[in-house]
Amino acid sequence: MSRLCGLNHFFGGLMRLAMIGLGKMGGNMVRRLRRGGIEVVGYDRSAETVAQLAAEEGMLAAASVADAVAQLSGPRVVWLMLPSGEITEQQIRALAPLLAQGDIIVDGGNSNYHDSQRCGAWLAEQGIGFMDSGTSGGVWGLENGYCLMVGATPEVARIMAPILQALAPAADRGWAHVGPVGAGHFTKMIHNGIEYGMMQSFAEGLELLRGKQEFALDLAQITELWRHGSVVRSWLLDLTAEALKHDQELTAIAPYVPDSGEGRWTAVEAIDQGVAAPVLTLALQMRFASQNETGYGYRLLSTMRNAFGGHAVKHAGGEK
Amino acid sequence: MSRLCGLNHFFGGLMRLAMIGLGKMGGNMVRRLRRGGIEVVGYDRSAETVAQLAAEEGMLAAASVADAVAQLSGPRVVWLMLPSGEITEQQIRALAPLLAQGDIIVDGGNSNYHDSQRCGAWLAEQGIGFMDSGTSGGVWGLENGYCLMVGATPEVARIMAPILQALAPAADRGWAHVGPVGAGHFTKMIHNGIEYGMMQSFAEGLELLRGKQEFALDLAQITELWRHGSVVRSWLLDLTAEALKHDQELTAIAPYVPDSGEGRWTAVEAIDQGVAAPVLTLALQMRFASQNETGYGYRLLSTMRNAFGGHAVKHAGGEK
Repeated sequence: MSRLCGLNHFFGGLMRLAMIGLGKMGGNMVRRLRRGGIEVVGYDRSAETVAQLAAEEGMLAAASVADAVAQLSGPRVVWLMLPSGEITEQQIRALAPLLAQGDIIVDGGNSNYHDSQRCGAWLAEQGIGFMDSGTSGGVWGLENGYCLMVGATPEVARIMAPILQALAPAADRGWAHVGPVGAGHFTKMIHNGIEYGMMQSFAEGLELLRGKQEFALDLAQITELWRHGSVVRSWLLDLTAEALKHDQELTAIAPYVPDSGEGRWTAVEAIDQGVAAPVLTLALQMRFASQNETGYGYRLLSTMRNAFGGHAVKHAGGEK
Repeated sequence: MSRLCGLNHFFGGLMRLAMIGLGKMGGNMVRRLRRGGIEVVGYDRSAETVAQLAAEEGMLAAASVADAVAQLSGPRVVWLMLPSGEITEQQIRALAPLLAQGDIIVDGGNSNYHDSQRCGAWLAEQGIGFMDSGTSGGVWGLENGYCLMVGATPEVARIMAPILQALAPAADRGWAHVGPVGAGHFTKMIHNGIEYGMMQSFAEGLELLRGKQEFALDLAQITELWRHGSVVRSWLLDLTAEALKHDQELTAIAPYVPDSGEGRWTAVEAIDQGVAAPVLTLALQMRFASQNETGYGYRLLSTMRNAFGGHAVKHAGGEK
């Protein structure tokens, strides 16, 4: 912490920024930035959250976005950790008039990279810098550091480096300036697409292990075993092994899997590029299948089987 | 090494076994066993390989399978590391008459678990023990240790424990007695099925990153970045990042992906169980697609488009 702090002072690096949105991700990022010796002005629509982070982490409390901006000095950097889409976009539109040439807005949420490109171009017209930061690591980021995929001009990336170094697992790894504005969220989108495929692979494999009743396999034992020396060892496996250790039946969990944007955008990207990505697409489609509570397609299939072949139909709420 | 050695002497544990098949896997397993203080009698159809391991690792050379058996004392353990299917099965049939009640055959190859169950039952009729060991870790096993998934009776697993401890990443992890005969190869089969899905997920995602030409992304940079703090961090990603560091174009590699049994068996298992495993199945099918050098189905599709819609056909060996 003191080392980074010292370096930034030495090089005149950025030492203060505003964080807007202090939820699960933003709140923990404030905590990690504070531990890295960075001053953070924080705003959230929940005054309670602001007060708590101010008390616990020495965050500078802001009563509004404008108040947050007022507590910065040039170049002023405002990092948004907000739900992607309308909310992020509206905040960027509202922020721009409060900023001046050379200031920077960072979108650290899971925005669609097309939106980031559009916002970046709009801000550039006003001389305001923009950085899109794809942020991976979830609730473990506070402890392990965040994996940050950053799109920006070289100048903006240079200014933001001390902040990225504090958020990443280490100053020299787990973050990178991967390309121009949009490239950060694009890279994060593909990362999440891959994540969908990996998760579905484990889910299907473990379901087949469990389905082999004659072997009465212990899935907690096997996932733990695979963590050491196997080809499938991975952080997702670590998390899965830990969860199965506590509860192998998962009876309290509904078989319903939400999805949150990037998986869909990855499937659309494959269509836009005309490049086959069937496994990533199918992993997404399987989530849709899990979300389909009416099962209309299945009802129709069963109806058709009955119609052409007289096959028995299993009636809703009863035996066939 | 000395600790294991001492433990085995103390408990009268197994300290010598025969290894039949000294290829990429078997040869390195001999090396790791030797480093764990285990005596190994080795046989391979290549006398040169036998001589080399004898000279380099102090392996006891055998001139034939019968000679290898003759250098053991009860319980005699013969570990097979041979190509699965006919070759392994014939070796088991040939070995059985050379063994006696209480001796053990281990099949450490990638056999189909149905075969292992059948062989195990046949050997059990003769009082010969059998262990099926799914072995993961590839060429890295020598250094990191092998991940071993073992199916056997409790008695056979107990006898084999010192050997498994020496092969695994550590005595207390990376190996497990997962169930009865067949369960080891079953678990390894599913492991490989998951591996196919994970590999295809990375392949599709990285192809989409590369396909986004406007961002000119550096795939070596991004895969290295993802190794730290991201959700997709994994050993497969480590290997991929290392490969891309040296050659990002992969122009020397043909777009042809072999498959080797377990992926197919996993897809069949899903059908046998009547359990959906579409991503694992599709990852396999994509390998088949890569292997299809005649592209007959694609020729037919192009022909049909031309037939009903007069769409232009791209002619073989030329432009459309």
